[in-house]
Amino acid sequence: MAGTLYLLPCPIAAGALDETLPDGVLRTAQGLSYFLAENAKSARAFLKALGHPLPLRDIDIVEIGHDPKAAAARGWLEPVLRGRDGALLSEAGAPAVADPGAGIVAAAHALGIRVQPLVGPSALLLALMASGLNGQSFRFHGYLPVAAPERAARLRELERASRSGETQLFIETPYRTAAMFAAIVQTCSSSTRLALAIDLTGAAEYIMTRTIGDWRTQAPPPLERLPAIFSLLA
Amino acid sequence: MAGTLYLLPCPIAAGALDETLPDGVLRTAQGLSYFLAENAKSARAFLKALGHPLPLRDIDIVEIGHDPKAAAARGWLEPVLRGRDGALLSEAGAPAVADPGAGIVAAAHALGIRVQPLVGPSALLLALMASGLNGQSFRFHGYLPVAAPERAARLRELERASRSGETQLFIETPYRTAAMFAAIVQTCSSSTRLALAIDLTGAAEYIMTRTIGDWRTQAPPPLERLPAIFSLLA
Repeated sequence: MAGTLYLLPCPIAAGALDETLPDGVLRTAQGLSYFLAENAKSARAFLKALGHPLPLRDIDIVEIGHDPKAAAARGWLEPVLRGRDGALLSEAGAPAVADPGAGIVAAAHALGIRVQPLVGPSALLLALMASGLNGQSFRFHGYLPVAAPERAARLRELERASRSGETQLFIETPYRTAAMFAAIVQTCSSSTRLALAIDLTGAAEYIMTRTIGDWRTQAPPPLERLPAIFSLLA
Repeated sequence: MAGTLYLLPCPIAAGALDETLPDGVLRTAQGLSYFLAENAKSARAFLKALGHPLPLRDIDIVEIGHDPKAAAARGWLEPVLRGRDGALLSEAGAPAVADPGAGIVAAAHALGIRVQPLVGPSALLLALMASGLNGQSFRFHGYLPVAAPERAARLRELERASRSGETQLFIETPYRTAAMFAAIVQTCSSSTRLALAIDLTGAAEYIMTRTIGDWRTQAPPPLERLPAIFSLLA
């Protein structure tokens, strides 16, 4: 009988594991010895931090990279198919959400492997909860275009779409978050609300929702080189 | 100085709290004595289950109902504004996501109250993780229309929209999930994928992704009167 593929969230910032992962999830992780991870080095650090009882040399970590190919999934899941439980973990947060890994989960379903998601931190979910914007209708876009004209056009498009009441969420890489904030403040209407969730669960956590008009008159948010989730609602 | 408004997730099914809530979150909840809850009775049961150290009569639970009015938020937040920490909790899952409460969070931001989201279970997030469908671009619609013709039209619309690669998520009340499944299977194309996440973290948890064509030839999923999240991707 095939094993189970657990979907194991990882911390999204440095800090105590017991703030962001349930005890039961830590225990499940401690009981596994087969992991599919974006990066083997950070997976090892995570397993060490959660006090995995096995020595690291007895734990199999398969590095699937940042853009795992669906064609490789069958091979990676072979041990699970033969009865060994395993876990998919991402670099930070929930696997397969705003992150690679969905193709592996899809392959598990196709192979008849039981898929078991575990509770843990998701920057996206925490940002939406804390935004005060509509959480009953929302859309996540991933990354927006980087080039200034395309980015501005896309921001205007999202702002327009949000007039229906649907919150629009997107992310940006840490070294471009300040530029993204500047572009939003320049592009969007003063009455549109922008929620910022910076370094969630981390030491520099900053959460604030303001209208664009208010953002324009306040000191800029502490974005520099920190991960951030942006949520817009006109 | 104003207190902090914590956003406290609740279990989404009966079972051990330590499978779905981090220790640190349980400790935070144990340290609070002011709660804004959809339903006071279930809030009391939750606080008892997490071993709150105070007798229930010393804990203030304000019942905000299923559709809290923004106009009332200022009054509810008054104690927090005066320096008492408090928590917003929902009936199940993450507050203000696929659930009421966003207006209270928005009021907290407007009043300058610090908002602190806590990690916990979200059926929506777990369903998306486990679906194997695109988690880098997705849209949550809440409830679809109940009447059959409108529901079918909306399902066709969502299926069409998902051709861009964007996963479409929606929910249904437990006593209508079987009817929703039947409508999807009847309405959508055989190559479209439908992910079902039923009774997540509960005793009857069932997670499966199949094409509509495959769903048509298999025994119907165990949906009867259970909460479910539906995810579609053409």
